[in-house]
Amino acid sequence: MRRYATAVTLRQFAHTHTQAQARTHARKGTEATVVRTLASSASPLPELTQISDNVQRGNYAQLNDKDVAHFEQLLGKNHVLTEDLEGYNICFLKRIRGNSKLVLKPGNTQEVAAILRYCNERRLAVVPQGGNTGLVGGSVPICDEIVLSMQRMNKVLSVDEVTGIAIVEAGCILENFDQRARDVGLTVPLDLGAKASCHIGGNVSTNAGGVRVVRYGNLHGSVLGVEAVLANGQVLDLMSNFKKDNTGYHMKHLFIGSEGTLGVVTKLAMLCPHVSKAVNVAFIGLNSFDDVLKTFVSAKRNLGEILSSCELIDELALNTALQQFKFLNSPISGYPFYMLIETSGSNGDHDEEKINQFITQGMERGEILDGTVSGEPGKVQEIWKIREMVPLGLIEKSFCFKYDISLPLRDFYSIVDVMRERCGPLATVVCGYGHLGDSNLHLNVNCEQFNDEIYKRVEPFVYEYTSQLKGSISAEHGIGFLKKDYLHYSKNPVAIEWMRDMKKMFDPNGILNPYKMLN
Amino acid sequence: MRRYATAVTLRQFAHTHTQAQARTHARKGTEATVVRTLASSASPLPELTQISDNVQRGNYAQLNDKDVAHFEQLLGKNHVLTEDLEGYNICFLKRIRGNSKLVLKPGNTQEVAAILRYCNERRLAVVPQGGNTGLVGGSVPICDEIVLSMQRMNKVLSVDEVTGIAIVEAGCILENFDQRARDVGLTVPLDLGAKASCHIGGNVSTNAGGVRVVRYGNLHGSVLGVEAVLANGQVLDLMSNFKKDNTGYHMKHLFIGSEGTLGVVTKLAMLCPHVSKAVNVAFIGLNSFDDVLKTFVSAKRNLGEILSSCELIDELALNTALQQFKFLNSPISGYPFYMLIETSGSNGDHDEEKINQFITQGMERGEILDGTVSGEPGKVQEIWKIREMVPLGLIEKSFCFKYDISLPLRDFYSIVDVMRERCGPLATVVCGYGHLGDSNLHLNVNCEQFNDEIYKRVEPFVYEYTSQLKGSISAEHGIGFLKKDYLHYSKNPVAIEWMRDMKKMFDPNGILNPYKMLN
Repeated sequence: MRRYATAVTLRQFAHTHTQAQARTHARKGTEATVVRTLASSASPLPELTQISDNVQRGNYAQLNDKDVAHFEQLLGKNHVLTEDLEGYNICFLKRIRGNSKLVLKPGNTQEVAAILRYCNERRLAVVPQGGNTGLVGGSVPICDEIVLSMQRMNKVLSVDEVTGIAIVEAGCILENFDQRARDVGLTVPLDLGAKASCHIGGNVSTNAGGVRVVRYGNLHGSVLGVEAVLANGQVLDLMSNFKKDNTGYHMKHLFIGSEGTLGVVTKLAMLCPHVSKAVNVAFIGLNSFDDVLKTFVSAKRNLGEILSSCELIDELALNTALQQFKFLNSPISGYPFYMLIETSGSNGDHDEEKINQFITQGMERGEILDGTVSGEPGKVQEIWKIREMVPLGLIEKSFCFKYDISLPLRDFYSIVDVMRERCGPLATVVCGYGHLGDSNLHLNVNCEQFNDEIYKRVEPFVYEYTSQLKGSISAEHGIGFLKKDYLHYSKNPVAIEWMRDMKKMFDPNGILNPYKMLN
Repeated sequence: MRRYATAVTLRQFAHTHTQAQARTHARKGTEATVVRTLASSASPLPELTQISDNVQRGNYAQLNDKDVAHFEQLLGKNHVLTEDLEGYNICFLKRIRGNSKLVLKPGNTQEVAAILRYCNERRLAVVPQGGNTGLVGGSVPICDEIVLSMQRMNKVLSVDEVTGIAIVEAGCILENFDQRARDVGLTVPLDLGAKASCHIGGNVSTNAGGVRVVRYGNLHGSVLGVEAVLANGQVLDLMSNFKKDNTGYHMKHLFIGSEGTLGVVTKLAMLCPHVSKAVNVAFIGLNSFDDVLKTFVSAKRNLGEILSSCELIDELALNTALQQFKFLNSPISGYPFYMLIETSGSNGDHDEEKINQFITQGMERGEILDGTVSGEPGKVQEIWKIREMVPLGLIEKSFCFKYDISLPLRDFYSIVDVMRERCGPLATVVCGYGHLGDSNLHLNVNCEQFNDEIYKRVEPFVYEYTSQLKGSISAEHGIGFLKKDYLHYSKNPVAIEWMRDMKKMFDPNGILNPYKMLN
């Protein structure tokens, strides 16, 4: 095992850039869906999506001055915006651009309810918006929907050290929520690149995944209760402070992952585990995907309860990041595959012993070829930085098609090989990385610039291939606007029809987040 | 710390009794809701529930010979029962007795679909039934509903050692499922007293809890996919093999915990963790509930990721079990509170060190007064037996009101003290035990025999008190028939109204499991 060479940490990186740039970089450090226009401050504004994508506006009322006056009276003038709305209209990837003329910032659940009641009666369409860090265009208007920004509802209402249960408003930024939990020795069981900007309510509405699902499971397990405002303004209080609560239908799950199309999440209860006393990270090199799988099984067996992340990066993905960011310094090189394996436990000595034994055994079996392990917080961050910079490297390099899919582990990497063959020299890079521990692959196809020929080789093949393997065409990003044409590749017509019925039941006038999820 | 005295294990106990007796005992070793008639082979048959509870039969068709002939043709005569139906008509607690004249045993999903399609068209009411171990009368007919027994759909279809995902038919007995998982080093993340009889489909339909929720969370996190047949015979395929799958509304959760009222679960995908290499159990004595709470927080902090169970037994609950079962031998005695704390980890030495340190620190602080720890499988089982015999001891002793509630931990035990005062000498025992780690209390009130005076002191007070503390009136058993009048104590009218709408949407003719959950 080599010693890991020092490199600047993500935080240091941020300090050397302007705040805005750092924020852009940090945000970009998440995986995106198909990126046809790069997110860069130099990019011109994208065309209005309604025009570029030929979207037929729904049969909604047109906003008028009387409506604006009504909202100003309801919320106060400060919380009703009619100018400088670009940041609310354009998605994080600068792929989708809406044309909303009104942003409302309610301060509490009652105000959200009053807004929706009014909009439902007036047939005004509404898009709920959290941190606007979504990657499928789910949180921006497509036409002229009113933006319902949750920014002001940002309070952590309580954190119970004994039960681990925290109650939080939907507009709280994930990182702030986590910090409040950490103040009493707890942590939010969700961690993702957009942490510094995304809202917990948006995370819940997206059923966001991230790098800790392998340890803490997804939000359906962690979110104990939800308060949501329905399209008609009714407040549906499904809050619960208990891990066990079998009183009627478990409807809260309908609001986890429905992307604001069934209701607006305003408050939630989250089960927060204790902060681990020790965190160790291994960065290892492997020769084949077969060895990657063996190493994953060995990690689950030998690290068991302390395994907290299991990430894969292939050689091309890593090399692209290293080429793009000269300050990055990988401790090992020259291997076809790399894995980042993290442990979090309550006893550092025990964890170190387990991880060393796991690595030693893997090396003895010839599955792990080389690597580095560290439990020092600075080093842990440095290793994570390599992983975090991988998606950014690909976006920076050139035009990049990006996919977020779940595939059976045995076939996890085959799509990368198949895609390489399909694209041939048309692609400059075809690579894969992602959350191996959750069967979640981020497939990337880079080319000099977007062109129809490569596009046709990539899509819809990538969805067909995923569908044939009974995979998921959206692992963690959701469907939103960008993937709604592809939903049928992962869901059968019966299920989709029931989803439509569900939508009709909760939102008969279709005012909530239209043009998203269901065609 | 004292050494734990040897006593017969539950398995040994079973061997010394007839199989039937042992089975009855094992089954009784779960917590029941209000038990007004004891489950004992000597008990006479209870009155028909339709008569005793004055249930108005729904406006369903009457079964006729033509219907029976249709089903015989569909399933084969062997799988259509019209005689000796007592076991299907009477609930596990012998509290509810229906009067069904027909039991159907489909062998696959298509047969379930054909049955429901027919019943829906004919307006014949149906009750889906798994192992019939439910404790709220959810799995037996109330009037003359057709029983749809899932017994034959009992196959484990696949277990994937690499991903940990198992696909299983709904009628598979939990213990058999677990055994199949264990064959490849995995375990089903659900463990409860009725394991040897209950079906995994029934567990999912109930959202069963048990003693491992503190470690693995509830079934909404573990169940990755569900196949359900709807009232109209449509097969709703919501199967998924992935932890991350954000493709549309997460409707599978509607079938987890809806007690067969929205659809019949026929198949499911379950995420199974690896079997822990080491299991340790501590049984400790404490002086006050305040010390119990402190010890729980210390367990979460110090045992962290290896904590797999955290149970509470109060003095009266333990003593009653010891009096009733002379073969039981508690390693410690004379303390107001006892806790059973289990760890499961991947390294026995590490776990032992952690648990010993946790105990030593607790004793130094004076929170833990005495106790015993063991990692030897036989001893672990013996300690668990004490916990498992507690509910049985109370049922055996005399008439027993039993409640399954979730309460905020800070107020967890107050209801026992309050109830003791309310009942005074009318009650012979008022005690509490349960899954402290999940805030789930089993409150028991024993008296010589049922009488209205004590009943009025206990109910609805217990629900009002729970409701005032925003607790749950059913933590893990569900609502079924027995608790449907009390649902409003835990769910508000808006939520209940939406549940009704959900029911109407999925089952407009109300043929699925009528008289349950919603009034």
